[in-house]
Amino acid sequence: MSAAPRRRRVGVAVVGLGGAVATTAAAGVEILRRGTNRMHGLPLAGVSVPGLPQYDELVFGGWDLNGQHLGDAAAEHAVLNDNQRAETAGALSAIRPWPAVASAEFCRRIEGANVRAARGHRAAIEAIVDDITRFKAANDLDSVVVVNLASVERTPEDSPALRSPDAFEHALDADDARIGPAMLYARAAIEAGVPYGNFTPSVAADAPALAELARRRGVPVAGKDGKTGQTLIKTVLAPALRARALHVDGWFSTNILGNRDGRALEDPDSLRSKLDTKGSVLDSILGYHVEDHLVDIRFYRPRGDDKEAWDNIDVTGFLGQRMQIKVNFLCKDSILAAPLVLEIARLLDLARTRGDAGAQEQMSLFFKAPQTANGRAPQHAFPAQQQMLADWLGVPLAPVAE
Amino acid sequence: MSAAPRRRRVGVAVVGLGGAVATTAAAGVEILRRGTNRMHGLPLAGVSVPGLPQYDELVFGGWDLNGQHLGDAAAEHAVLNDNQRAETAGALSAIRPWPAVASAEFCRRIEGANVRAARGHRAAIEAIVDDITRFKAANDLDSVVVVNLASVERTPEDSPALRSPDAFEHALDADDARIGPAMLYARAAIEAGVPYGNFTPSVAADAPALAELARRRGVPVAGKDGKTGQTLIKTVLAPALRARALHVDGWFSTNILGNRDGRALEDPDSLRSKLDTKGSVLDSILGYHVEDHLVDIRFYRPRGDDKEAWDNIDVTGFLGQRMQIKVNFLCKDSILAAPLVLEIARLLDLARTRGDAGAQEQMSLFFKAPQTANGRAPQHAFPAQQQMLADWLGVPLAPVAE
Amino acid sequence: MSAAPRRRRVGVAVVGLGGAVATTAAAGVEILRRGTNRMHGLPLAGVSVPGLPQYDELVFGGWDLNGQHLGDAAAEHAVLNDNQRAETAGALSAIRPWPAVASAEFCRRIEGANVRAARGHRAAIEAIVDDITRFKAANDLDSVVVVNLASVERTPEDSPALRSPDAFEHALDADDARIGPAMLYARAAIEAGVPYGNFTPSVAADAPALAELARRRGVPVAGKDGKTGQTLIKTVLAPALRARALHVDGWFSTNILGNRDGRALEDPDSLRSKLDTKGSVLDSILGYHVEDHLVDIRFYRPRGDDKEAWDNIDVTGFLGQRMQIKVNFLCKDSILAAPLVLEIARLLDLARTRGDAGAQEQMSLFFKAPQTANGRAPQHAFPAQQQMLADWLGVPLAPVAE
Amino acid sequence: MSAAPRRRRVGVAVVGLGGAVATTAAAGVEILRRGTNRMHGLPLAGVSVPGLPQYDELVFGGWDLNGQHLGDAAAEHAVLNDNQRAETAGALSAIRPWPAVASAEFCRRIEGANVRAARGHRAAIEAIVDDITRFKAANDLDSVVVVNLASVERTPEDSPALRSPDAFEHALDADDARIGPAMLYARAAIEAGVPYGNFTPSVAADAPALAELARRRGVPVAGKDGKTGQTLIKTVLAPALRARALHVDGWFSTNILGNRDGRALEDPDSLRSKLDTKGSVLDSILGYHVEDHLVDIRFYRPRGDDKEAWDNIDVTGFLGQRMQIKVNFLCKDSILAAPLVLEIARLLDLARTRGDAGAQEQMSLFFKAPQTANGRAPQHAFPAQQQMLADWLGVPLAPVAE
Repeated sequence: MSAAPRRRRVGVAVVGLGGAVATTAAAGVEILRRGTNRMHGLPLAGVSVPGLPQYDELVFGGWDLNGQHLGDAAAEHAVLNDNQRAETAGALSAIRPWPAVASAEFCRRIEGANVRAARGHRAAIEAIVDDITRFKAANDLDSVVVVNLASVERTPEDSPALRSPDAFEHALDADDARIGPAMLYARAAIEAGVPYGNFTPSVAADAPALAELARRRGVPVAGKDGKTGQTLIKTVLAPALRARALHVDGWFSTNILGNRDGRALEDPDSLRSKLDTKGSVLDSILGYHVEDHLVDIRFYRPRGDDKEAWDNIDVTGFLGQRMQIKVNFLCKDSILAAPLVLEIARLLDLARTRGDAGAQEQMSLFFKAPQTANGRAPQHAFPAQQQMLADWLGVPLAPVAE
Repeated sequence: MSAAPRRRRVGVAVVGLGGAVATTAAAGVEILRRGTNRMHGLPLAGVSVPGLPQYDELVFGGWDLNGQHLGDAAAEHAVLNDNQRAETAGALSAIRPWPAVASAEFCRRIEGANVRAARGHRAAIEAIVDDITRFKAANDLDSVVVVNLASVERTPEDSPALRSPDAFEHALDADDARIGPAMLYARAAIEAGVPYGNFTPSVAADAPALAELARRRGVPVAGKDGKTGQTLIKTVLAPALRARALHVDGWFSTNILGNRDGRALEDPDSLRSKLDTKGSVLDSILGYHVEDHLVDIRFYRPRGDDKEAWDNIDVTGFLGQRMQIKVNFLCKDSILAAPLVLEIARLLDLARTRGDAGAQEQMSLFFKAPQTANGRAPQHAFPAQQQMLADWLGVPLAPVAE
Repeated sequence: MSAAPRRRRVGVAVVGLGGAVATTAAAGVEILRRGTNRMHGLPLAGVSVPGLPQYDELVFGGWDLNGQHLGDAAAEHAVLNDNQRAETAGALSAIRPWPAVASAEFCRRIEGANVRAARGHRAAIEAIVDDITRFKAANDLDSVVVVNLASVERTPEDSPALRSPDAFEHALDADDARIGPAMLYARAAIEAGVPYGNFTPSVAADAPALAELARRRGVPVAGKDGKTGQTLIKTVLAPALRARALHVDGWFSTNILGNRDGRALEDPDSLRSKLDTKGSVLDSILGYHVEDHLVDIRFYRPRGDDKEAWDNIDVTGFLGQRMQIKVNFLCKDSILAAPLVLEIARLLDLARTRGDAGAQEQMSLFFKAPQTANGRAPQHAFPAQQQMLADWLGVPLAPVAE
Repeated sequence: MSAAPRRRRVGVAVVGLGGAVATTAAAGVEILRRGTNRMHGLPLAGVSVPGLPQYDELVFGGWDLNGQHLGDAAAEHAVLNDNQRAETAGALSAIRPWPAVASAEFCRRIEGANVRAARGHRAAIEAIVDDITRFKAANDLDSVVVVNLASVERTPEDSPALRSPDAFEHALDADDARIGPAMLYARAAIEAGVPYGNFTPSVAADAPALAELARRRGVPVAGKDGKTGQTLIKTVLAPALRARALHVDGWFSTNILGNRDGRALEDPDSLRSKLDTKGSVLDSILGYHVEDHLVDIRFYRPRGDDKEAWDNIDVTGFLGQRMQIKVNFLCKDSILAAPLVLEIARLLDLARTRGDAGAQEQMSLFFKAPQTANGRAPQHAFPAQQQMLADWLGVPLAPVAE
């Protein structure tokens, strides 16, 4: 009689662990662990590739400015239904975020008391590396990935300090104020040799200095800004409009959302970061500049985590005649985002296993502003992104009519 | 001093030449011929492939139950704007439809006086072949393709007569009532050795007997039912929903349109043919059966040729949570359809040049119910269809962010 | 020290007690009885008029073909949330429907085993009267009203038997098949001297014979077909379009709903009854005939009791120019209907107290096809209906900017 | 044999005569004058009241910073269709705006060369009065009304100077910078004894000082900010939501428009004036504060004068359950506004005839922020506004089901 083989344990250290997305992701893994064949929303659920961790092999930990355990966080976010909350309460309340490195400079609207007192950038990085090391040891983990799910930070002004690894290291020594928390976490992950995924619009491993450092150190990084709702639809529809030669005269997008992310976006600087990642998508897909491409995001509390997007698209067709398409997406932010976080964690761990370093371009499918290598322009069209990932995985994704 | 080389002249013999789509296509070619660089709505406008005719090399002729010339037809359809109508009036009024073969049995709502009196199926086919021959000679054409744009016919009951070339020929001899006008036009095109494209939902060259005959005689055929509005959107969105593992619980589609096509669809039998071609798309793309897939089409006159579709999609995402997507497409039926007719004609002529026979599967991109060869299931997903056509053409289509 | 004065007890005997609307209404009263100041959805919540019963003075009973108690019914309908179901489970499970008079002839899609075996119309009426008498005695009720919430019946063919009280009585004796269950309940209510409200589109107390009989016997009646979602919006918008002289060229309405009502409407005859009450509203308000007024209702299960309506309105404004309004109402059928049932019961009891007999026209506000007296045309415009009720009550309703 | 009686001639002196609304109004009167029975969009078309001028008795003149004649303006605005432009070209090109008083301080985005050089406020008023006098004489007018259709000005900071007639007169003498052009036009109209209607959100005759002065001088004034599209729908729906006790949790309104008005609203100060008049409507009708009432207006060129509004309304109904209503209004700004301008001019002239002075509250129906007398709160509910006007006119408006 032999024991079942020990399963892998892949740690997911989340920046912003107490947020709605991270809590939902952690709860989701717990529900999957308890056995279910309902794999809705998980893009790679049916995909079998050697080295790709299973969903229930993921173990959650991470940092948050809010120190409450995830059971309380889940109750507050109200994303899970009553049954799901009851089912996961035990597991979630055992997860309590570690104190976080933060900067009121970079993200003004969100506050919290669970703060890591670090004297300067170097000390902060060291503390983060320690957290990762401790996380790994305490949970008997085979490997770890870091995923950033924190509230969006304002975009730092461009600076030579962000452009080369050497300059960046000097800026760290000088506690340069242009280096924000997201970059410190990314720098720490690289230091620890663990992959780093960026689900936020904040500048982190996509700063050229850090992208290059990751490549040199053999650490896979991916980002940025998870592609969940409106931008997903945009990158699905726009390639078809191009394929049908329907010229986009204008694309008006508005969003209403009432969760903590929405509140953070009331800060104009944070909103700017967000709009930046949403904005460039369209021109890139269409191959021309759409001057009347407008994107609004408004904090609107009645919906809570339920986000709503309304898009109006004006197109010109044959003989210069005009038509309109309107899309109204009543979605749930965390429900769309959480499964992508699981896939990102799994794929980053696979990339590490395969020895891939630097920007993981094949993960473009999951991001609004895909990080690329070698200065390539990002691929935004959804079908092309899906093909890139399928090629990298070596299996077909969502093959149809086979 | 040398003369400009003679340009090719490719005849497009349209069944239903006086309809809004055909009239718009003919007017469109005339406008392109007068020189314009506005190629909106033409999917292959920028594609250069040897043997593919230019838009302005197309010459229109065809049959219609309504004998009025295309200038009058264009005025009635009110698709062109005033300038466009003025600009094309001369050319269009010179085109007068030939008398058409028709059957009140197969399409009850549309009537007309411009009828070909043919005694039986064989005589009808012969008359159609004669029309094609005369068209070619009279216009000094290098080649001809036939495109069916007539009002939708009811679907014939299944019969052995439609299943093999031999049985079909016997049924022709017997004037079998299950053989409708669309099949007679297809049969005549094959007889004349000219390609046949079917933009309607009617059964024509997709009857197994005719598909096989086309293959044996070396004649390319393609169809059926042009993919213009709602189904286009469906085949664009559904692959993405599958890729994101968002389970489609229901998809409700309704359409309002006020043109002649809408009136024809008031006949329940014709409507059934139409709904059949719209219905199977979704299950095929998603890989499972969507029981609550409903499609309504209503004749609603206020819009005329401006068609409107409203779709509501219920999806289930991560952790079984529900979301909704609504799409409202305010489109112009003929403006979307006419450029596809031009592409179909050009591609069929290219297929003929290349010696391709039988069902031209690579043209799936343009059809709601793509005709395939060798019993293959049709490919409905728009991005995959686009790839098929690009592969066949040997050029990339709408490449992005290169 | 004196005891609190005994409160009134008004019985509400519901035809179709086990349905979603009745169950929600009964649960709602129970929740209000437990003390809450959340009076959402109750139009007359703040209105104080002598003789108008309080919400928590209503006591529910009634008939249903399905004999399960209301606790089970509530669980099945899934309208209440978990808390509300738990809170009312005790009270609801004590209410078990009495066997119902029914006719497969009049409503084909809904079946049930809890059937009253009555030999002929007279016996059925007698049994219903007995039920009412027993209900009153067993619950120590001061008065009773009957409200019809059963599934819609097909519209009977017109017949002299439905036109005068005498002819109707003869038809009852002859067990005339044109007299359906809804009429038997109405006739029994009149017999028992209790008011009758009709929330369904079925013909009942609005048959001229019964309206006249009610008037003669001094019994108030009101109906028919509760105005909840799409028609409510229609009767709110249309008067404003008239006031602005925006001509309605077409009004396309479609509905998707997945509850038992939706299933019943899959029977074309029942659907016809429903569409009849929805159809005449618009012309009446606008003062001209809208030929392109289309109404679709489709059974679509993903939503359950959540109903969705989509309306497209084409209007012509100044200088003949065209505009469009689209309204998308994501509503909950029973949540909109149940409070209206409470108001109807309260107002009918007040009408009885006041001695008003026959059709209670002032209750038009709650119905798609308001029953009127003296052959008057119904008032459909929502603001005018509200004024009628305010005048009758003698208090302002929703006065604004006072 | 007697000559036809001379018809009245009522001058409409428009501030902003070259704008899309004024041009459309002037063209509309010209078209009506040529004889048509198409009275779409004219709310009082069928109303016959002694003293109310006929539409074709109106004569247009006015001021504009852009000196081009109205024929050119109409061509630029592209509101009229080709036929309408041709039909009115002669009449419109004979109307050339007078030089306008303007202030870059008060409206930054709109520029023009057709400026009245007036040295100080008093001189400006005098010049405006002269223009009115000249207009009357030159056109043999029986009376004149002034209507402000200029681009929105920023709201002036509150000041004692705007609160009493005496203070205002002193401020005029001092050329107080808080007095903007709209106030100067209003002051001049009062000086000239002609009624003043304000279709813009700018502060004008609604400044308490001017309202009181108008009352004292016996001059009727009305305003402000024409109620055309989204706010119209809001004041129609909100009373019904209140009547049904559906609690409004949030109301999100967004607008896209591409005409000159839209461009003016790109100035945040002007936008603020506009949002102010749109914002207070809802709370007033509902009787409680809606914290999540958001209104966005975006300049979006693809539509030109075609404006589009999208509203999402979150309501809570019975038992605290949530529902949503979405309204999408594809409207034409000038087509909705122009007929209201005609009605405002006619009613102001009638008020003058009747001797009514000061704020004409009964005209609330036409304004987003109705000007009231005696400090009364404005009535925003559309049905109640309509009743007010009907009472004043002494005739029913849009009576239904008579």
